[in-house]
Parts: sequence; C-alpha cells; structure tokens
Amino acid sequence: MTSRCRVALAGFGTVGRSVARSLQERDDVELVAILNREVERKRVEWIDRRTTWTESFDDLLRCRPDVFVELIGGRAPAADWIRRALEAGIPVVTANKQVIAHDGASLLGLAAARGTVLRFEGAVAGGVPVIRAIESGLAGDALTLVAGILNGTCNYILTRMERDAAPFDEALREAQALGFAEADASQDIDGLDAQAKLAVLVMVAFGLQVSPAALAVRSIATVGPVDFVYAKRLGCTIRQIAWAERIGSGVRAAVGPALVALDSPFAGVGGSGNLVAVHGRSGGTTTFGGRGAGGDPTAVAVVSDVLAIARGTGSVPAVQVRCASIVSADAATPCYVRFTVADRPGIIAALAAVFARHDVNIDAVLQEPGYPPHERPFIVSLDAAPWPVVETALGEIERMEFHVQPPLALPVLTGVEDRPVATF
Amino acid sequence: MTSRCRVALAGFGTVGRSVARSLQERDDVELVAILNREVERKRVEWIDRRTTWTESFDDLLRCRPDVFVELIGGRAPAADWIRRALEAGIPVVTANKQVIAHDGASLLGLAAARGTVLRFEGAVAGGVPVIRAIESGLAGDALTLVAGILNGTCNYILTRMERDAAPFDEALREAQALGFAEADASQDIDGLDAQAKLAVLVMVAFGLQVSPAALAVRSIATVGPVDFVYAKRLGCTIRQIAWAERIGSGVRAAVGPALVALDSPFAGVGGSGNLVAVHGRSGGTTTFGGRGAGGDPTAVAVVSDVLAIARGTGSVPAVQVRCASIVSADAATPCYVRFTVADRPGIIAALAAVFARHDVNIDAVLQEPGYPPHERPFIVSLDAAPWPVVETALGEIERMEFHVQPPLALPVLTGVEDRPVATF
Repeated sequence: MTSRCRVALAGFGTVGRSVARSLQERDDVELVAILNREVERKRVEWIDRRTTWTESFDDLLRCRPDVFVELIGGRAPAADWIRRALEAGIPVVTANKQVIAHDGASLLGLAAARGTVLRFEGAVAGGVPVIRAIESGLAGDALTLVAGILNGTCNYILTRMERDAAPFDEALREAQALGFAEADASQDIDGLDAQAKLAVLVMVAFGLQVSPAALAVRSIATVGPVDFVYAKRLGCTIRQIAWAERIGSGVRAAVGPALVALDSPFAGVGGSGNLVAVHGRSGGTTTFGGRGAGGDPTAVAVVSDVLAIARGTGSVPAVQVRCASIVSADAATPCYVRFTVADRPGIIAALAAVFARHDVNIDAVLQEPGYPPHERPFIVSLDAAPWPVVETALGEIERMEFHVQPPLALPVLTGVEDRPVATF
Repeated sequence: MTSRCRVALAGFGTVGRSVARSLQERDDVELVAILNREVERKRVEWIDRRTTWTESFDDLLRCRPDVFVELIGGRAPAADWIRRALEAGIPVVTANKQVIAHDGASLLGLAAARGTVLRFEGAVAGGVPVIRAIESGLAGDALTLVAGILNGTCNYILTRMERDAAPFDEALREAQALGFAEADASQDIDGLDAQAKLAVLVMVAFGLQVSPAALAVRSIATVGPVDFVYAKRLGCTIRQIAWAERIGSGVRAAVGPALVALDSPFAGVGGSGNLVAVHGRSGGTTTFGGRGAGGDPTAVAVVSDVLAIARGTGSVPAVQVRCASIVSADAATPCYVRFTVADRPGIIAALAAVFARHDVNIDAVLQEPGYPPHERPFIVSLDAAPWPVVETALGEIERMEFHVQPPLALPVLTGVEDRPVATF
C-alpha cells in the first residue's frame, strides 16, 4: 500500500486508547473508525474529527478499512467479527488470547484461504515480540519446549511475597489497588489467563492445536511467604510458570507455581514482567523478556502488527496446525512439599515411611526455627519422581491427623538453560 | 515460490556445514551450489550428489539460485559478492557482521532498488532473533537505547573469573582450548567484534548509520578477579557491554567492561551466552537472550532467513538509514575505580583531594583484607560524574608515585529495567 493504511479499531479501553494515540501520531496510517459500546461516553477530543465513532460492526465494515484491529476482548462477539472481517478479505490484528487460543487454527486457515492475514502479537506477553520471533526467527529450528512467565499479576504478587514476606492476600490487594489485578483476579491467580496464552504459544511453537481447558492448572493462592524462605534455602524462588513440551505429536503442559533456580532467567523477572523461554534442537534456549501487560506495551505489539501489514511485510507463514493429544504429566520431576503441622515426635518418620513405600526418595528435610509448635511449617524436597506418584503418596499422608494446613507440593524446574526442564 | 527454493551457499566452515545439513533435511529447499576455497578438500559425502561444488562466484551465479547465502566472513570479497547477487535481483542471506556494519545501509538500499531483500539475522547474537524482533516486532515503538552482551568469548572469560576467581590469562587460555576464542582473541577482548555488532544494532534499532570504528572500545584485559570481589560488595558483577543511546539524530555509544547490578538481566547471562536489551518509549525494556555463537545457533538464524524468503514472508520494511553523528560520552555515570598501590598513609587523602578539586563525589572507599601492603588493591566508587572529568582526575592521580598497577576505571550501568542506563 502506498497510500495511507486505513485502520478500523474495535475496543476503546486502555489498550485501544493507547493504540489510537500511537496511530494518530503516524502519517502512514489513518484511523477511520472506532467501535465501542456506549460510544458517546467514550468519545474524546484528541481523535481526528473525520474518524467514524460507532457501536455497530456493520458500520465499521462499511468504512472499508485496510486493517481491522480487534481489542474488545472475550470470545463473543470478537471471534465472529474477526471471522467476518477475514471473510471479507480484510487483514485482522488482535490481542485477544481467548479467541486465538480457542479459534486460532480455524481463523488462520480462513485467513489463508481468503489470501489475507491474522496477526496476534499482543495476545501473549504484551509488548514482547515473541510470536513473530518464534514463527519466523526460529523457523529454522525444531522447537521442543516452551516455558514462560505469562501472567504479570501473578508475578507481581509472588515477587512481592518474595521481597517483603507479604502474605498472599495483602500482595493481591496491593496488586488490585495498583491496577495490576482485576477485582475478580481468579483468572490470573488460578492460571486461566496463562492457560490461554500457553495454548497460543503451543500453536505457534509446535504447530499443534490444544484445547486450553485441557492444560492442567494449579492456583498460586496456596503459596505463602514461608515457601520463599524454604525455596531460598534450596537455591530457588517461586514463580507462576506456564510450561509445554512437545512429545511426538502430543503435548505435555501445565500452568502453576513452581520452584525455579535463583540463577535462572525466570528468577530475574521482577514485578509484572513476562519472560518466555523456548528450547530448540539446534539453537538451544532462547529467551524473550519485557513488559507483559499494560496499555502502552500491548499497543506496541498491536501497532507493530498494523505496520507490518501496512508495509506489505505482514504475511505469515502458512500454518499447518494439527490437533494434538495431551500427554499426561508422568515424567519424573524433583518436588518441594511444605507441611504445616501441630508438631509432635514421629511425624517425619511417618511421612518418610509413606514416601519410601512409593519408592520416592527424600533429598532433604528442612525446618526453619521461629515458628510455634502448634503450627509449624517444614519442607521435604524429593528427588525426581513421577508427579502422579507423589500425589498418591501425599494423598495418604494428608489423611494423617497432624496437619494444620493441607500439604503444598510444587514442582522444581531445573535446567531451562541448556536442556529441557523438568515437567509437572 | 511453490517449487523448492534453490539455495547457493558460499562458505563451508562451521556455520556453513550446519546450514547445509539443516537445508538438506528439508523438502521445501534445495542446496544447488556450495562455494569454498580449496573446495576439493571441503567436499563431504552427505551432500546431495547433484549439488555443484565450486571455487568461483561466477559458477555459483550460473546456478541461478533463488537465494544466495554468504557465510565466508570478512569484508572482501563478501561485500562484492553480496552486491553482485543483489544487482542480479537475487535475495541474499548473510551472517557477516563486518559487511553489514560497514556497508549495510548501501546494500539495503541496493536491495530495495532491485526489488529484492538482504537479510542478516545471524550477524548479531547468533541464534537469537533480535534483528527481526526489533525491525518488525518493535516497529510500533520509538527505541531510545540498545545495550547488549554481544561477544560470547568475553562473557565466557568474565563469568569464569567471576565464578572461580581465575586470572584473566588462564580464563582466556581455557576459552581458546574449548574453541570459544581464536588463537588471536584480540578482536573479542578489545571489543572490535562487539563494536561491529553494535553498529548493526544501531542501524536496525535507530535507523542510523555509524562507522563502527567511531564507536569507543575498551578492552576487558585489564579486569582481574579482585574486581569481581569488589563489584560484589557493590551488588554488582562485570560484563562486556555494548551500549548505544539515541540522542536526537546522533548516537552515544561504547563497548567495554562495565559493572552491572547482580539482579539485572545482564548478570544472569552465563558462559558464552548473549543478551540484547532495547528500551522503547512505549514498551519499556525488552530483552532477547540465547546462544550468541556456534555453528548450530547461527545456522538457525540463517535458515530462518532462507525460509522467510522461500515462504514469501521475507520482505523487510524499507529502511531509511541516515548518517548519524557520534555524540561524545559526556553524560554523567557512576564509576568504579580500582587502585593497586604500595600502601602508606595518606593515599586516600591525596586522591580524594584530586576528585574534590574536579567536583567528583566519592560514594565509598572499600578495601578487602588479605592483600600484601606492597601490592594492595582498593576501590573507590564515585557518584555520577561526566566520564571525561573522571578521566582527567585519574590522569592526575596516575602521576602519583604509589601505583603498582595503573588505576582501572569502569562505568556502572544502572537501571536498564525501566529507564535509560547510565552512559560511559
């Protein structure tokens, strides 16, 4: 396109406003339409007077845009609008993780069939250009593993607990007060946000389609400040990790809190940052880090996608996405288990006997001083063992009467730098 | 291209062989010609029998390749061959940092004029796809700063000194024995390798052309194990950092050893790893890390560039590269200075008086025990001050008679995460 690229934007929230501001500053792009619910309430002075404001997708299509930017979020009606734009041969840019996680493969197929493109850099890791880096920059490698910190809210909470020994509830309230977390933060904390993003990464990195709901999730809500104390004793800290490994034509994947080595790239991610690590057969581990959320960083991803289309460099490799089976997490992984007990003699012996019966080897037992005997936390670190076996053993131990809180088991991620990480 | 993409390869060294092996495994690419000096000595069994082996670039062109891959290294005759291929309308892929650093702007202009492309992902940071991430994924941002660990040899040596208190010479010999460093490692150690890569990054990130030789370099050879002890006392370690900041239409840039905070992404880069951090006005700091050298990682970059061209997704944004002025490094930076002296009373007072006269504030003076008085190292950390002023003060101090070794001054990089780093 030699003339200005005409962009229509649906969604005028935080990201949408940042995208609009950025597009307005450029002379190679023209913002022809903005769609939002209650559009009159959204209207602002700094948008060009010629831009159409509307609540109707049909109005938006009638503006004949060169690119449709979808930023309304959620599956409906976003997926339908994206489909209609692609069917009309209009290139689409979206930051919608739910649409891409659920319908990405079919929408990419539709785009290819219509000779147009669907780009979604903003759907994962905000302003970090990990999607195009994987699909294009690592195209010459065979990727075997992807692991990431994909949810800035969880990372904010966990690093706050790490740094200041803040209780979980306090760290969450603070994240909410600062606008890092929604009033209902369960999508973040329980791992559903990262689960959708992980499904997108699996599609891009492995060419495999998985149902997001099939990826195991565990909440970070059971992690406490004491776990950071013990993790540090083991040379580790705790992060919410989204993790997927390619096993033939299947995928082993999970999202949840995990111990990561203090000298790993994950431990270095502070605040609401994101980091994605991919491992390839030839290239080893490559990392991509930066701001995973927020209006401006996500807008960088969206605007970069728009510019790629405007400059005629936006075509994407034809994606051969196949449906993948989910392989159960039966690979062996080292494990951290924190018990909180009403202390009395014989507890270690009792649980050691259960682990021994299941052939799970105890690496270390650690107990920090300074906790009252009626609610005393201590931890057991386990040598690599299949996760289901550990869970069975813990099920037996949990029935014993000395617990004040349920045991908390966390996988220990090892060796992300140069070999596949442990599974969980 | 729907038929197989015909690739001609010049250079059959470590990277070339790895590229050839990778291309041979694919059915969408065909290796039609291999060019090398003394080609008969290079010939191997595992290359397809139909592939032409030659020592002549004219022979190679006669094979009418769809892509020319240049991996011979050095400026001549590589630059000439690339130019001739582009003039013939043949897309070119290279990993040649010297050619791109010196002639990149004119060759990109030639490619655009001939309606073809020149790609060079492998020229910087080996397998880390930082070039396309910047040129495309961060196109929507205004980049203000780029800083990186771009030389794996230096990073290997410095991390070896950090971990095992190895002397510089021993760490260098070990790097040479392991194949990480050439017999003549001066290009690495003195910063010339990183200097060329930094010039490439400046072109891609800022659209500004600089003569590589105009970028200031300082050697890592004067850094000793004792500096890691003192750096740690300051919460830092030492890395070779290549660094450039955009100042209007000019660039302030340098390559050399610097103190970096232990919790910065640079400190986490071990062994021969690379890491590039870019700072944008909207997106904040984004990092790209991975294997910066070696046949296989660099081959991933080269093959990914070939595949982008083969798939018709290899076009690059038209680059408007302007010549940039080099801005002298007059911004204030905190500074670390290590003195090695024949100890006697009055030394601190003498040098403190010089710093005071130049209006340079001393933040701390540290002296570790355990060194003999006739060769005693101690350090002075200085508050942010213009580097030329610090150098002038050190020139005066250096004339005093108590030195056993010349003072070593290193800049302290601060705040890469969320604001521009200090300069040096």
